Parts: sequence; C-alpha cells; structure tokens
Amino acid sequence: MSDMHLGVCYYPEHWPESLWADDAQRMVAAGLTRVRIGEFAWSRIEPEDAQFDWGWLDRAIAVLHSAGLRIILGTPTATPPKWLVDQMPDMLAVGQDGRVRGYGSRRHYCFSHAGYHAQAVRITRALAERYGHHLGVVAWQTDNEYGCHDTVESYSPAARSAFQRWCSQRYASIAALNSAWGNVFWSMEYRSFAEIELPNLTVTEANPAHWLAFRRFSSDQVIAFNRAQVDVLRAHSPGRDITHNAMGFFTAYDHHALGADLDVLGWDSYPLGFLETFRFSEADKQRFAHQGHPDIAAFHHDLYRGCTRGGRWSVLEQQPGPVNWARHNPAPLPGMVRLWTLEAFAHGAEMVSYFRWRQFPKAQEQMHAGLLRPDNQPAPALAEVTAVALELAALASSGDTPKQAAIIFAYEADWMTDIQPHGPGSGASRSALWAAFACYSALRRLGLNVDIVPPGHDLAGYALVVVPCLPIVSDALAAELAACPGQIVIGPRTGSRDTDFGIPTGLPPGPLRDLLGLTVILSESWPDRLSIEGVAEGMPWQAGGWYDHVEGVAVPDLVATDGRVASWQHGRVTYCAAWPAGSYIETIIARAASAAGLPSQPLPYSVRQRRLGNLLLHFDYDTASVTISPQ
Amino acid sequence: MSDMHLGVCYYPEHWPESLWADDAQRMVAAGLTRVRIGEFAWSRIEPEDAQFDWGWLDRAIAVLHSAGLRIILGTPTATPPKWLVDQMPDMLAVGQDGRVRGYGSRRHYCFSHAGYHAQAVRITRALAERYGHHLGVVAWQTDNEYGCHDTVESYSPAARSAFQRWCSQRYASIAALNSAWGNVFWSMEYRSFAEIELPNLTVTEANPAHWLAFRRFSSDQVIAFNRAQVDVLRAHSPGRDITHNAMGFFTAYDHHALGADLDVLGWDSYPLGFLETFRFSEADKQRFAHQGHPDIAAFHHDLYRGCTRGGRWSVLEQQPGPVNWARHNPAPLPGMVRLWTLEAFAHGAEMVSYFRWRQFPKAQEQMHAGLLRPDNQPAPALAEVTAVALELAALASSGDTPKQAAIIFAYEADWMTDIQPHGPGSGASRSALWAAFACYSALRRLGLNVDIVPPGHDLAGYALVVVPCLPIVSDALAAELAACPGQIVIGPRTGSRDTDFGIPTGLPPGPLRDLLGLTVILSESWPDRLSIEGVAEGMPWQAGGWYDHVEGVAVPDLVATDGRVASWQHGRVTYCAAWPAGSYIETIIARAASAAGLPSQPLPYSVRQRRLGNLLLHFDYDTASVTISPQ
Amino acid sequence: MSDMHLGVCYYPEHWPESLWADDAQRMVAAGLTRVRIGEFAWSRIEPEDAQFDWGWLDRAIAVLHSAGLRIILGTPTATPPKWLVDQMPDMLAVGQDGRVRGYGSRRHYCFSHAGYHAQAVRITRALAERYGHHLGVVAWQTDNEYGCHDTVESYSPAARSAFQRWCSQRYASIAALNSAWGNVFWSMEYRSFAEIELPNLTVTEANPAHWLAFRRFSSDQVIAFNRAQVDVLRAHSPGRDITHNAMGFFTAYDHHALGADLDVLGWDSYPLGFLETFRFSEADKQRFAHQGHPDIAAFHHDLYRGCTRGGRWSVLEQQPGPVNWARHNPAPLPGMVRLWTLEAFAHGAEMVSYFRWRQFPKAQEQMHAGLLRPDNQPAPALAEVTAVALELAALASSGDTPKQAAIIFAYEADWMTDIQPHGPGSGASRSALWAAFACYSALRRLGLNVDIVPPGHDLAGYALVVVPCLPIVSDALAAELAACPGQIVIGPRTGSRDTDFGIPTGLPPGPLRDLLGLTVILSESWPDRLSIEGVAEGMPWQAGGWYDHVEGVAVPDLVATDGRVASWQHGRVTYCAAWPAGSYIETIIARAASAAGLPSQPLPYSVRQRRLGNLLLHFDYDTASVTISPQ
Repeated sequence: MSDMHLGVCYYPEHWPESLWADDAQRMVAAGLTRVRIGEFAWSRIEPEDAQFDWGWLDRAIAVLHSAGLRIILGTPTATPPKWLVDQMPDMLAVGQDGRVRGYGSRRHYCFSHAGYHAQAVRITRALAERYGHHLGVVAWQTDNEYGCHDTVESYSPAARSAFQRWCSQRYASIAALNSAWGNVFWSMEYRSFAEIELPNLTVTEANPAHWLAFRRFSSDQVIAFNRAQVDVLRAHSPGRDITHNAMGFFTAYDHHALGADLDVLGWDSYPLGFLETFRFSEADKQRFAHQGHPDIAAFHHDLYRGCTRGGRWSVLEQQPGPVNWARHNPAPLPGMVRLWTLEAFAHGAEMVSYFRWRQFPKAQEQMHAGLLRPDNQPAPALAEVTAVALELAALASSGDTPKQAAIIFAYEADWMTDIQPHGPGSGASRSALWAAFACYSALRRLGLNVDIVPPGHDLAGYALVVVPCLPIVSDALAAELAACPGQIVIGPRTGSRDTDFGIPTGLPPGPLRDLLGLTVILSESWPDRLSIEGVAEGMPWQAGGWYDHVEGVAVPDLVATDGRVASWQHGRVTYCAAWPAGSYIETIIARAASAAGLPSQPLPYSVRQRRLGNLLLHFDYDTASVTISPQ
Repeated sequence: MSDMHLGVCYYPEHWPESLWADDAQRMVAAGLTRVRIGEFAWSRIEPEDAQFDWGWLDRAIAVLHSAGLRIILGTPTATPPKWLVDQMPDMLAVGQDGRVRGYGSRRHYCFSHAGYHAQAVRITRALAERYGHHLGVVAWQTDNEYGCHDTVESYSPAARSAFQRWCSQRYASIAALNSAWGNVFWSMEYRSFAEIELPNLTVTEANPAHWLAFRRFSSDQVIAFNRAQVDVLRAHSPGRDITHNAMGFFTAYDHHALGADLDVLGWDSYPLGFLETFRFSEADKQRFAHQGHPDIAAFHHDLYRGCTRGGRWSVLEQQPGPVNWARHNPAPLPGMVRLWTLEAFAHGAEMVSYFRWRQFPKAQEQMHAGLLRPDNQPAPALAEVTAVALELAALASSGDTPKQAAIIFAYEADWMTDIQPHGPGSGASRSALWAAFACYSALRRLGLNVDIVPPGHDLAGYALVVVPCLPIVSDALAAELAACPGQIVIGPRTGSRDTDFGIPTGLPPGPLRDLLGLTVILSESWPDRLSIEGVAEGMPWQAGGWYDHVEGVAVPDLVATDGRVASWQHGRVTYCAAWPAGSYIETIIARAASAAGLPSQPLPYSVRQRRLGNLLLHFDYDTASVTISPQ
Repeated sequence: MSDMHLGVCYYPEHWPESLWADDAQRMVAAGLTRVRIGEFAWSRIEPEDAQFDWGWLDRAIAVLHSAGLRIILGTPTATPPKWLVDQMPDMLAVGQDGRVRGYGSRRHYCFSHAGYHAQAVRITRALAERYGHHLGVVAWQTDNEYGCHDTVESYSPAARSAFQRWCSQRYASIAALNSAWGNVFWSMEYRSFAEIELPNLTVTEANPAHWLAFRRFSSDQVIAFNRAQVDVLRAHSPGRDITHNAMGFFTAYDHHALGADLDVLGWDSYPLGFLETFRFSEADKQRFAHQGHPDIAAFHHDLYRGCTRGGRWSVLEQQPGPVNWARHNPAPLPGMVRLWTLEAFAHGAEMVSYFRWRQFPKAQEQMHAGLLRPDNQPAPALAEVTAVALELAALASSGDTPKQAAIIFAYEADWMTDIQPHGPGSGASRSALWAAFACYSALRRLGLNVDIVPPGHDLAGYALVVVPCLPIVSDALAAELAACPGQIVIGPRTGSRDTDFGIPTGLPPGPLRDLLGLTVILSESWPDRLSIEGVAEGMPWQAGGWYDHVEGVAVPDLVATDGRVASWQHGRVTYCAAWPAGSYIETIIARAASAAGLPSQPLPYSVRQRRLGNLLLHFDYDTASVTISPQ
C-alpha cells in the first residue's frame, strides 16, 4: 500500500562520510523509504555559538535523497551543546529533590526557561530556513521524546515564576485560587500569586489541588515549547508533516493537546524494554520475555491514533533487537520484528521506522541493537525487515475498519491517580493509565477492535464504551454518555473530583449520578492482601484494590461470596465498585460486550486479532509459533 | 459518668457561617459535649502581620458555647502562615539530608528558631488574652501533633547554635564532653563548643554519643517550645486544662517530660492507619484490616496514662471511618467506632473526641472520613457515636482499678535502639518501643491490667514488673527494683549503657548485675534467619534477634534444643538473653505472671479484657462478633 | 617459623597510661610479636595546628618496644582533626549526590584537594622524622582503609579541576577525547578540557566512557595520595616495610597499582561481617553465619598476594569476635579465630594482626570485640590466639608451593561491569569481581591452589588459566594467552571493549577472536527468571544472567536442553556464553581442570585445602567439626 512506509533512524554524524552512500543504498535495498535524521546533532550543526556547519548535513541529505529516500528531519533541541549551557546555566532543570539536573547526557533543559525557549526557536528556524523547501524532506520531528527521564516537571526558579503567571491566568484572583484549592485547610492561603511556591520539598504532602495545577502547568509548558517549533516549521516548511515521538506508558504531558498541534503523532515501540520495566506479572514477564506482552504495542497504537485530529500516527522508533536501557535486555525471538511491524500497520500506522540503522559502538546506547551490527554486517532484524517490506501489499484492505469498543482516557486522570493514589498497591497498577490498560486487555482478549479516545470524542457507532477511571467528568461528557445508546462500563473514581481536585458537591460520581443510579458514599483503598471473590457464568473472579460503598437505585451486579457488591447495574450502565483489574474486569467486560451484541469470543492467552477494513488479522505472541494471518 | 465526655474536632473556618448553628445543634443531639477548634486557623485569625480578624472566631465560639458545648481551643502554631514564613525564611527546618523543608503543608518550622519561638508565644498570648476567661473555653491544646512528619529534629543553623549552647550547659567543659563521648576514638575531639557539628551528613555514622545528645537536645527543644505556650496560657487563662495531642508509635520527644507540663495528655487514635503503617505481621494485617490490632489503642491508652502526674489523659482524635494518610485505607467494621470509644473509657480516658465533624472535600485530607459526609449527610460513625453516648453510664464503676503488671519504658531507650539498632531485623521491630509492645501484648493476652510507667515511678503494688529494654539504668532504679517484692522480667540491652552511650565499666547490665546475678560478656545481633527454639510447659517457643552470652550465678531458665540458654533466672528475676518477641516473650511472661500469683489466663487471640474498678470488660476485635460486655 | 608473626591493633591513646605496660606484657605473653598503632591519633599528636604532643607517643612506643614488640606505625591521615577541617572546609569530599560529606566520623577528605594533600605529607613527614629510625618501628602503614565508606570518588570542585587536568594529560587534545568517548552521540562534545564536567547528577546516565575515565582518575588520585606518603617514608625511614590495609570485596581503586608502591599489602579480614554484608545465598548465610563462607578469606589472601611484586602480604586486621558494622553481628564459633589465622599462613601471610587489643567502650565501634573485653578481662579469642601462637611451627614447610590454576583479574574490569551492569540481577553478583569469586570458588571446591593475578602476570607453569570477565584485553595479553599451553576458560564480556569503553572494531572478543574461534554478534542480559539448563557427566547445570550469540569455528561444548549453546570449545579454550556462576561454572571448571591434568577432586561443601610447600592443609568450616590438618 502506498501509505505504509518502512523507515529507519540514522545518524550520519556518527559515521565516516565514506559510508553514507552505501548505507543509503542498503536502506533502499531493504525496502525502506523513510529515514529520520538530525535530532541529536546540534553540536555538529552549530559547533560554536552562531557558527553553523551545514556542509555535512547538506551532503548527508543529498546522499539519502538521491538514493530515493525521503527524510524526516529532527530539531536537535533535546541535546543543547555545552557552549549553550555554559552561556545560561540556569536553563538546566531542577529535580523534585531541589537539585540541578546537570549537563552530560540529554534533555538537560527546563521547559520554562525563556532563554532556552528562544534558543530552541532559533535553531529550529535555522534548520527550517535551510531545509524547509528541500524536496527530500517530507516531515519534521520536533525535539525527541519530550519528558523522557522525568523531564516534564522542573522545579527551577524559572518554573516557579512561570507557574505563578500560569496560576494568575487560570484563577484571575488569589482569592479564587485559595477557594478552589481549599487553602484555608492548613492556613495555606496565599495573599498574592507572587507568594505561590512549587509543591515539592514540603514537610509533608502538598495540597493535591496544588499538585494538579502544577502538573497541568508543566504539561502546558511542553505543549507551548512544542508549538513554538511547530509555528516556525509551518511558516518555513509548508506542506511537510510535523510529528513528534511519544513514549510508552508515559503520561506526564497531555498527548491529546500535543497531538492537536501535530499532523502525525509518532511513538517509540520497545515491547521487550517495556515488559521488563513496567508492572507486568512475573508469569507474563517470563512467558513473554522475548516477545513482549501482546497488548503493549497495540495499546499504544490505539491510544496514539486517538491523539491527533486526523487519527494519523506512526511508529517512529521500532525495537529491532535487544535494547540497552531496561534492567535486563533479552533479544526478541526470530519473527518478532516482523510481527511487531505488521501489527502496527494492522492498527493503522503510516510508517514503522526502526531504531536504528547501525549500532553505534560508543556512548550510552552502545548496546542498543540496530539493523546493522557495529561491524557493518547485518543484524538479525535486517532480513526480517526486508521480508516484511514485501509483505505489506497483503495488508491492502477495503472498506471501513469497524467501530466496536471505545475506552475514554484523559491524561489528567493519570496525574490525579498519581497525585492521590490512595493505595499504591502493586506499584503504579492503580493508576488511571493502568486501569485503561486492564480494560483494553480484557477487550482485546475478546477479539475486539478498540479505540482509545479523549473525553469529548464522538461516541457514535460504539456498541460499548468503557470509562476505566476518569476523576473529572464534565457535564458535557455526562450528557454525551447519557445519549450514547451502547453499553457503558464505568470504573471507580470516575466523577469523583471537580476541576480543582475537590470532592464534588453531591459526592461522586458527580454529574454521572443519574446515569449510574447511585452515589458513592464511602471509598476504601485496599492493600493487595484484601480481596473479594465470586463466580459468574461458572468462572471465578477476584477483585480488590479499591471498594466503593454506594447508595441509590442501581441494582447489584457481581456479588461476592461474602455478600459485598462488586459491581452495580443501572440499565445499560455497569459501575465497578472495585478496581478494574484481572478476572474481575474481564468478567464485567465480557458481560457488557455480550449485552452490546459485539462479536466477542475469548482468544488464546497469547493471541490477538485486529479487524482492518475487510481483513481479519491474527497475531500470536507465543513462543510455539509466530503467526500473522492476513485474510 | 460525669467525667466521660465525647467530643469532636471542628473547623468552622472551613464552612459557611450559615452552617455553624445547625452543626452545633447536631453535635449536641449526638451526645457530644466537647468541641476542639482553632488549631490550624492562623491565616484566618491573623491574615496579615498584626492584623487580627477575631470576629469569625468570636462568633464560632459563641455559637458552639450557646448550644451547650464546651470548647478546647488550639493554638495555631503548627501552621504558620505564608507571610510569616516570608518574613523569616530561616525559620524553616532543615532535614537530615541537609535540605530545607519548605512551606506548603504544615509543621514547617524549626523548634530552635528564636524568631519563630517568639512568634508562637505572641500568637498564643493573643488568643489567651482574648479567650482565656471565656466561659465556653474549658481547655487549651498547644500546637498540634508535635513531631508529626519527622519534625522533632532539625539540622538548621539555628539548631546547630542551640545544640552548641545545650552541650555547653550539659557538659560545662569541652574536655568533659570529649571524654564522655570518647571523641579520641577517631580524632573527633573538639577544642570548643563552637566547633561542634550536628551529627548528620557525616561520611559514615557519627558517634552514637553525639546522636544521643542531639536526640536529647531535640526533645528538649520541643518541651521548651511547648512550655513557653503553657506559661502564657497559665498566666492568661487560669483554671483551664492544658493538653496536647500525641501520636501513635511515636517516640521522637520525651512524652513523660511533655506530660509533666500538661494537665491532660491527649492522643490521636487511628487503629486502622497504624495497623497498615507499622510493623505488624501480614497475618495480623489481614485479619484486623477493618478493626486494628487489639493492642494498638490500649497500648497507647496505658502508655499516655503514665505520662502525666495525675494520670489524666484523653483521646483527642478518634478515627471515625477510613483515613487518608496510610498506604491503604480500609473502612472500620460496623461497631468498631463504638468499641474503640468504650475501650478508651475502660482504660480511663476523660474524653474521646472524634476527628472530625464533617469531611472537608478539599486539600490534603479530603479522603479522611468524619461524622458527617461532605454533603452534610451522616457518615456511618454518627449513629454509633450517638448510641455510645447513651451507653457511657454503664461504665460507671466503683472501687479502685487493680494494679497488676507494670512495664517500665523510657523514651530515650527508644532513641538509643534507633541510634544503634545492632540488627534492624524486621524494620523497627527491635526497638525499645516495640520490645515494650511485645511485652504489653503478652501481658494483655493473659487478661492483665498493665501500667506503662517511666523509670522512677512508684512500683509498689505491682506483682509483676517488666523492663523490656532500658539501656540506661540509674542506681536509683536498680535500688527500687531490688526493693520490689514482685516478679521481675528484664529484657536484653537493659543496663548496657552509661548516660553518654558508653558501655558501663563493669559491663552490662551495669547496676543490675547483682539483681540479675549475671554479667553480659558478649552480645550477638542476629538476622531473622537465625533462631533458637525450645519447649516449655508443652508449648514450643522460638527466639532470636539478639543473643547475650553471660557469666554469673544466675541459673538457666529457658534452654533451647541446641543447649543455648535463652533466659536466666536469679531468684524472682528473669533475664531475657534473646530479643523479647513472639512465643518466646509470651512464654517468659506467662511463667512470671504465674509465679507472681496474678489471675492470668490466655484469652482468645482477638479478645482483650480490662478491669475498671469493679467492672470486668471484654473487647472482641474479631470480625465474627464485636462484643463489649460491661459486667 | 620466623616469618609468621602474630600481631594486634592497639590504641594507647584510648587508655590510661597506667595500663600500657601491663598491656604490652600480656601481648607478649599471648605470643604476639607485632603491634599496630597510631593510625587515628592525629588529634592527640597535633592537638592544635603545628603544636605537636609527642610525649605520650614516645612513651607508648618505648613501652611496647621494651616489652619485646615490634611496631607498625600508622599515618593518621584518615582522621584529620577538626581544626584542620575548619582551616580548609573545601577539603571535604562531595558525594555523588552533590552533598558535602561532613566532619564527624572519618575519611572526611577529598583525595584531589591539594591543600589536604600537603597536610597529609606534612604530618607523615613529622612522624617519619621522629620515628623513622626508631629500632622498635619495623613498618609503616599509610592512612587506613583507603576508600572505606565509598570515599575513593569525590565530586568536589577540586576533583573536577583535577579530572580536567587528568583528561588533558591522557588525551592530549579535546578532539581525541571527544572521539574516544563518542561524544558526538548526544551532542556531548566538549570544546576544551575546561568544559569537562564530572559524570554525576546528569539527567540520565552519563557516557560510560566518561565514567570509566572518572573511575580511573579517582583510582589514580588514591595511588598518588599514597605515593606521596610512601616517598616521605622511604626518605626518612629506610629499611622499614611500608604497607596499607585493604578491605574485602572492594575494588574502587586499583590495588595492583597500590601494591606496586608498597612492600607488603595488608588486608582486613572480617569473614562474618562480609558474609552478612555481601551477596551470598540465604542458605550460605544461614549455614555459615558463625564461620563465614569458606572462600571469603582465602579469596582475598590469594588476590592480595598477587598485588605486590614480591607477593608479600599480611592480614592487618583479623576479626576476633563479633563486629559492630554489619547489619547483624553474630559471634564466631569457638575455633574460628584459630582456623582463620592458620588458613592465612597456609596461603602465605607474613603476619596476622587482630583487631583489636581491647574493646573500647565508647564511640562508633564500641560493640566491636577485641582480644580483651572492655573490663580488661580476656575475651574468648585471646585463648585461641595464645594457642595458635604455639602451633605456627607446625606450618613449617619445605619446597615450592605448587602452581595449579591462575585467575586473571583487573580492577578496571569491575569498574566497567559496575558502570554498565546490563542486568543487575542479584545485586552486584554480575560484576567482574563476583565472576572471579565464582570461578575461584569452583576451583577451590576441587582442592586446587589458585593464584589471582593481573593481566601481564607471567602465566608460565599454570595448567589452567581462567579469565572470568575482562572487558579490555590488550594485544599483549592475547598473545600471552595464545602462547600459554594450559587449558583456558574465558568468561563473557571478555574482550568486549576497547580502552575507552567502545565496542571493538571487529566485535567482541576483540583480540581474542582467533584464540576463541568465535565472534560474539549479540549479547542478551537476562533477569533471574530466565535460565537454561542441561546435564553434563550426569550432573545437572543451570545457567543464566547473560547470553551471547556467537558465530565462528568454535564447537558447542555445553548444550542446553532447548538446544542453546551455553559454552563453546576451540582447542584447549572454553568460552562461556552465559554468566559464570553456580553449577554452570562449576561444570566448566571441573572439565577444564580435568583436561589440564590437575589433581582435582570435589571436596565437601564446607572444606577447603591448601598446598603449602610440602604440606597439604585442610580447613573445615562446618559447625560439626573444625579441623586443621597439617601433614
């Protein structure tokens, strides 16, 4: 298909110029059509302040372009050079612990520093002016992995000043802020915006409303930083797509807001690194050590597809072998690079770009595999990539991809569960993001197509809508859900807060009280050792983590053996009184999917399927066989 | 009974004035007679420096008083307002890590800062002058939970200067200090008091004598800070009780010293939060998740009763539902609020005051239950409280409460086991406090009344005296124990140090050598994986954690299967060579209680009893039934 | 034997002068001939700047000498006094976290601080001038336990400047440094040496080449600091040995480099403290709690014997009872002090010196046992020591000690596995040091004598050479191994890096490719949950931690049940594709020892043997019996 591209991340500045032409030809021979370059090259582009060295980059672009490749050019703002840092040392971010986060790796800047903001615009403009109309340049990537290494938040003096301004714009009067935050509580009232502190380094926890404001502010700073680059690029490079590479299981900035400013949202897919890093069960970590959990990549595909207006997205970095950055780094099984690639296109990717062309034998990522080994021989993935390039035609589909289930997810929901976890339980597993992942996994194991969408997204056409955990529910969303004819599943904490982290006047679920037919009068957070269990349709379920006491007209749905009600029913709506996870949410989702009339059926544990237009594709993550079955 | 009061903590400043009268009437209707207010309201009392707003507080007190309630008025020094902090930023405490502990929550002050000390006296005087003779005000609470969030110690410049002065007063000459601390050891000798550093941030551990001095100093600073308020209150509000609310499992300042300056020592009882937070077994945490371990509340009742000269104490904050601050926060079972309340009175409380009247829907404690929900409807506890108010008459008793067993506990003992744990084992479980808790639990499971008393307390009338862990034993205490006719159980490390943390000249147990008939010549600290075990009276016991080698005339008592002696007997005195915990200390205590002729009998695991005058009351913490049986 | 001495560490400054003569006589009576003094006594030698108090030290030395003891005199530079620190507060080291590491314990200095360097030379010269020709002084100890409490590295301004100078000397041009480190990677290029930062406090990990340079620099600073003292001592005290006391399982500086400047390398042997502190299995920690793992002491004996040109070494501190500094501190079994002593001599020690004469009842180490108790009575070890002194004659041997197996270990190898662990696994267990320990243990359980030698050591005479993990292999070492006729076992990561932490041009194992007949094309790091297993000679083996994919002419050796090759054979060389540990490395070592024709035979789990000249000695660490059998 013409709109499915394979690409690769390439760093000509790492290699002798004599290799470039051969590299380009081998890329083309492997079936690649896109190449991403430039995003860490500031020290080579501008080795001294205002002294640009364009020659090497001109030649690199020319070589790649003349070989038939199209270029995604990155702005190098994730790695400001030492001379720039020495000019304005206060551009460095400050960590939550109050320590300056120093030079010597990457992402060493504070989003709120006006001086660095101007520098980022300056270097972006310089690049855009030089290459904005180059025929080989088809897209721009802004910066690289915003927020990586916990860099969204900074606790610098610059951030404090900017936060004060942000507060004054949001709240207009300090009295309004004091009231919204409930600052009377511990005599925390401010007399002016200039008195506002950052919420770190307090004696005990700061006000959750304070934290939420700071998280919103910090996210807004990322969006503004990005938009400044976007504005320059749109002005100087018309007709080119603008993208950015998001990460996995990362929520520190609002990707819906970022996506609104981009043409295509990219993301960096490292299934093995994510499996090792994040909170999967020991059993899954062992079973899928060389494959990745079968929902990791697809969850993000479906999440990021919902982040841009046009639903355009791609994989900007695809793991091609062992990585270097997880605690342990196994190699993928033979066939996995092919599976991951095809699965991305099955979920609608425009491009899958491998990270990276050739393993660089030095510096931080020397143990990160590429398509070529450091000795320039093919790494195992290259043959798979070459084969996949020839298979893409088989993914040509016709007709519309069916709408089945929607999950509503908002980034600020995850900030709120992080700020006030109530019960950390198994690590981050009780966050809004992981609630969404659990619901997603339950839907996917039934073979359903899932769209993950923000509040406000049109819900027409979905037979099943799941709201795993959404503390703030607007009246508009409540109305939209009420109007939605499909089955609805609502998770705990949904509607439990007003816009400034207060409990809503009429108690949770706030504006959803009528739709759910209940009021939550008391919430318990439970350690892992507490649980309730029951049986539904002959299958046992177990629930815990959270337990809501309710009153209202809703009727008991799942009832535990000890009589406690684990979920409530009110018409087509199910409310989860316990935390959505495991067999509990699988039971609820299965019932709702059945009631919705969706063609659901349990798949084997390692298998997922995806409907793409008129195709039904299966992906088997088991070690016994790796099967991709385009129909 | 006329001297058993129910009360509630109330924050009129959180609510519209229009609610106050109704609140007061509902309090009275529920049987409450006391209301505690004001302790976090500085920013409303004095919104700008020296600009007081008394109106609202005048009216709040009037409304409450006229409804028939008596008021406990708090000084607001736990929450200095922002304008004050900005006036003197160096009033902020400094953490052990050297970082300033910033504004934005509460307790953001250094006890050694002279400027803040003066401010605390000033605001206390302002309150006392205005309300000191108010008929509605029956008591004052100083500050709030001294030391909460690890705030007893501060490592600020102000603390360093004050510590140097404290040292010069205690040791008179620097040579005496060097000698007492053994500073020659690593050339740590000071030439003057001005050279003395705080013991944090050293390359490896500081001298334990240095730490002990700093812990004593830090405790003394709390006592002095409190006494300054007490002096003002006594001068301006004669005839009113002065109290403070202590916490659970907290030893950072000397509560015996604090209690000496107060009329009534209060404490804040959160059985579920404490169970989740502190070192109970997984089995107990599961079994008692919704009740709290049956010794948690009673241990503190009996501990704090021993902290004031008159034995007067109360529960200033009683958990009424889920709290917000533990890692996980389950709800109490129905009936538990009633049980906790009655049990407090059974142990001699003057008042039980619930925290808090109405759940505040904002800020840090928004998830902390009250007697009312945020929507002003009754929370589950309100009905229990109302019922309990009617039951108090049944606790009317006559006659003296019998003396049975005494535990001797000193706060500095816990500082010493914290400074030099020897073997952290299961967290803090090898501290002097937890040794006391283990002994207490063993006594209570035999159905005995226990008094927890400081060294120097009159031991007359106790058939059994237990000294779980008291590193410093004065000659006076040694003499008192020698004169005590009852059975005596002495735990390890008792008598093992002189007043400046040195090993006593004739080795441990120092002045107790004659009484115990032994000398400890060698002490081992053991990891959890090492233990010895044996059988006594047909029941197995297991011991570990610590092991003392002794020589002397004492005879073996418990002997392990491998021949090692786990406890020694010398006349009526038993010495524990292993750490007092579990089946080991239960065996020793049971033998001693039997030898003492006490009416001991093993109770079911979840049941405790308390003799109150002529009453025998039972409290069953099991989920099967919650029974309070006044006889 | 005339060259086997017993000694003791003694602190006359801790005790009244009236005790000294009796102490000296009791030392001699116990069979001791050496006494180490002075290393922490700066505040007594020079109580004020330039005001020396020699009298007490003159008299102490005289008393000891006249009793017949010979003295090892320490320079007191590990404990600079307060007045000196106050003169130059920036002499304090800075931790990796950026915090100054303060006064109040010991080792409070930065090796790179020129002012303190000069002070250390000054106090050394003062001591050497006064006692350099004293007949009683037979040796000098420099400082005390360099690096204890993580003090090799300092991140101070002084260290940064010194590191910049070090870099300029090593790399000559900044372009060479940038190229060697691969600084282009993330625009980390420096324009001058003055721009170089220390590698701590970066946003994410710093460049591993940067870290390796900083580790080398930090080690070099220790060597230079020591050499400055050595130069003074050689000049002013001719004919005396110079020694230093190294520690256990400690690699932060290059002990081979240090040893090159010393006559005798000492070390401090605390088998129980090390067992508790380091990564032994729970089963071993339980079984050997009172004895220490049977390879702990011997491993260090054989390691440090290889650190000086002449192979001269001693135990400068020998544990005589419980220590104070481990997490838990059990007592040694009766007989263990004797066993440890005799085993040290069996491995070639010149002296075993017990730490310490009398337990000091104050300060940080008050719970550290001595040969005497604090009350001046004999501690249990004294009788064992006295008995051992009479047994030394039985260790008189004739003939050469046989060469059997050599392990090649380099300190920078451990720095590299620490910098880039790839998979932390069970703590530090995947470090080069612990790989060496696992290989050593496997060899020793076969009853073999082992020499642990640096790269470049003459390998003639060894039938078996093991290279457990040596990332940097020089061409010279490759040639030496190729010329070595014995069996060779090579562990993973060997030859995997060039001198600046880059992957070698032709991939690992770099210059060993021909010898091994293979190229490592891909390396996986595995979590503990992943493993492969197989059977060899009827015995099961299990491997994991790491897995290398190779290509070449080598043939499979151990093959797992799933077909993966766990080790490769090429002629007399075996390559380990998995991490050397447990049954896997035992299997490989046993096969290699057999092929080498060595007289290997499995010993019981708790027994080790050592050939010393014509003697064969056995050491049984089991609790059932402690047998030392000189033949």
